Amino acid sequence: MAFERPHILQMHGYVPGEQVNAQSVVKLNTNENPYPPSDAVQRALDAIDISDLRRYPPATATPFREAAAAHLGVSADNIIPTNGGDELLRLVMTTFVDPMETIAVTAPTYSLYPVLAEIQNSSLIEIGLKEDWSMPDDFASKLNQVGAKLAILVNPHAPTGMCLSADYLASVASQFKGVLLVDEAYIDFVDPQLQHNAIPLIEEFQNIIFLRTMSKGYSLAGLRFGYGVGPQSLIHPMMYKTRDSYNTDHIAQKLATAALLTSVDAAKNWAKIRQSRELLAQQLKQLGIKSIPSQTNFLLCEIPESVGAQQLYEALKLRNILVRYFDQDRLRDKLRITIGTDAENAKLLQAVSELI
Amino acid sequence: MAFERPHILQMHGYVPGEQVNAQSVVKLNTNENPYPPSDAVQRALDAIDISDLRRYPPATATPFREAAAAHLGVSADNIIPTNGGDELLRLVMTTFVDPMETIAVTAPTYSLYPVLAEIQNSSLIEIGLKEDWSMPDDFASKLNQVGAKLAILVNPHAPTGMCLSADYLASVASQFKGVLLVDEAYIDFVDPQLQHNAIPLIEEFQNIIFLRTMSKGYSLAGLRFGYGVGPQSLIHPMMYKTRDSYNTDHIAQKLATAALLTSVDAAKNWAKIRQSRELLAQQLKQLGIKSIPSQTNFLLCEIPESVGAQQLYEALKLRNILVRYFDQDRLRDKLRITIGTDAENAKLLQAVSELI
Repeated sequence: MAFERPHILQMHGYVPGEQVNAQSVVKLNTNENPYPPSDAVQRALDAIDISDLRRYPPATATPFREAAAAHLGVSADNIIPTNGGDELLRLVMTTFVDPMETIAVTAPTYSLYPVLAEIQNSSLIEIGLKEDWSMPDDFASKLNQVGAKLAILVNPHAPTGMCLSADYLASVASQFKGVLLVDEAYIDFVDPQLQHNAIPLIEEFQNIIFLRTMSKGYSLAGLRFGYGVGPQSLIHPMMYKTRDSYNTDHIAQKLATAALLTSVDAAKNWAKIRQSRELLAQQLKQLGIKSIPSQTNFLLCEIPESVGAQQLYEALKLRNILVRYFDQDRLRDKLRITIGTDAENAKLLQAVSELI
Repeated sequence: MAFERPHILQMHGYVPGEQVNAQSVVKLNTNENPYPPSDAVQRALDAIDISDLRRYPPATATPFREAAAAHLGVSADNIIPTNGGDELLRLVMTTFVDPMETIAVTAPTYSLYPVLAEIQNSSLIEIGLKEDWSMPDDFASKLNQVGAKLAILVNPHAPTGMCLSADYLASVASQFKGVLLVDEAYIDFVDPQLQHNAIPLIEEFQNIIFLRTMSKGYSLAGLRFGYGVGPQSLIHPMMYKTRDSYNTDHIAQKLATAALLTSVDAAKNWAKIRQSRELLAQQLKQLGIKSIPSQTNFLLCEIPESVGAQQLYEALKLRNILVRYFDQDRLRDKLRITIGTDAENAKLLQAVSELI
């Protein structure tokens, strides 16, 4: 006899990108930062007194919230710290979407969203991006037509790397009758020249909330620390009702706070990754592999039919180079390649040049 | 306009015990361990290389699961690591209980359960303990009568400290048609002479699952690390479907594993706490304060009416001594007091003797 709820029994779980630890593997498949965290993280780690661990951690993680608030120019009441960005995604669904109500995403999008919607037993509507990967016309109207309670946009977008403007997000938020969750997991890699900053929209709209993570920009994927940024009316019920009371731990709070307070260090890595991204895009193009201009730390690359995306993925894997292949519509001829160190990118290029 | 789901809008969140950091406060209110974690935890912390944090943590925390399996004499497939025991409680509800279905608990019990049931929008049935705090007659029949999908027992019990036998748990599991979750948060403090071990029941029953935590016995409340132990049919859907993919972080995995592998160190603290518990119970009795024989790291103390439990709680607080007062049926004449160090227990006794 199975005790699982019927919809859980039927569902399949999320399958994360392959994780391997071997030093010999060039790991360009899960959009991790190729550079280590700031020295301040090491100092924060050194300062941990393990006897403090016998006590529960600060339940509301106030020092982190204050650091995040200062970083973004908002109030600490606009911030909810979470056990990775994943927890924020789940909390938004748990708090704002009843089972059988509708969650809307674009197609394609981050492949975790549909799985989380399935766990919540919500109905999922996927609205296709246009041929050039731009947003569908009348997106907000479409959301309202299907009665979506929640819409999730990843911005910059995964897996394309394209960035929607704050003005566009404002237009969606103003028309959409549900909650708009903007997943800014890759925001730190956006070109500063774009002067992109959508966070002030939380002052204007009661239905917009942003996801931030320390995983990518701050090289802390292993720490599991993310946060939500939104109007108090959205933050408060998650902060004081639906999250687990002690959802972030003592050490993670300390290290994440140290990292955020020294974002100037992390920003040097972002600049380097942007440079490497442009260079890698050019070099791949010279090999006949086009990619979409990216505002993230990855490139979505079109693999010539003569080579085949899945075939190239597998051939690279045999050479201990991992990239991401998605077996889904519009992506079967593409590979998503994370920007690595100069040495990693060079190994990738060398292998690709030999394989195509 | 509120975007919250109607039942979330109406509910109140869980209010954890007061957390204060001042060294001057004698903190006997949240059942934390008064002694620091094992030296092996410090060594594990020293061995952390922050550059490893840029990578996602091992998603399935295999080293921890293997250590827990060896510790308990089960297979790693019987273990799910969680971000504190709280996450396991939530996952069991999310995975096995549909909204509007029934969750059953005893009254009184750990005050978090009703809050989690409310978040899940499940119906909660509270079945009262008998006058002597023993289990109600025909508990399993009552569970079946109300059609409970999940029953949660905390064993040893909070807030009484009493321990149900493995035989009793087996009788409930064999008759109950739903999932029986046994929260063993305080199991490490049970007298070894009792030779209590209910874990082998997972071989016999497909509907029993145990919660374990590193918070209490291993002095790691600040780390947020717990785990579930159960038959694969219950563990698998939580492990591979409903938990967040990377629910425990790299550092916490390393430290929790180190702590579990050196449980012989922690066991010295358990023995000391048991000694202190018996001594404190005797000393309080000499002051006219009776307590229930406890198998945990706390005492549920009956405060004479002439003093008043709430009054004593407040008077102790004025002296920087925190204990737990529950404003609920059958508990308004009692205080729950965590076992502290010898010095803390002496301060408590001194204050109580002056206040009554």
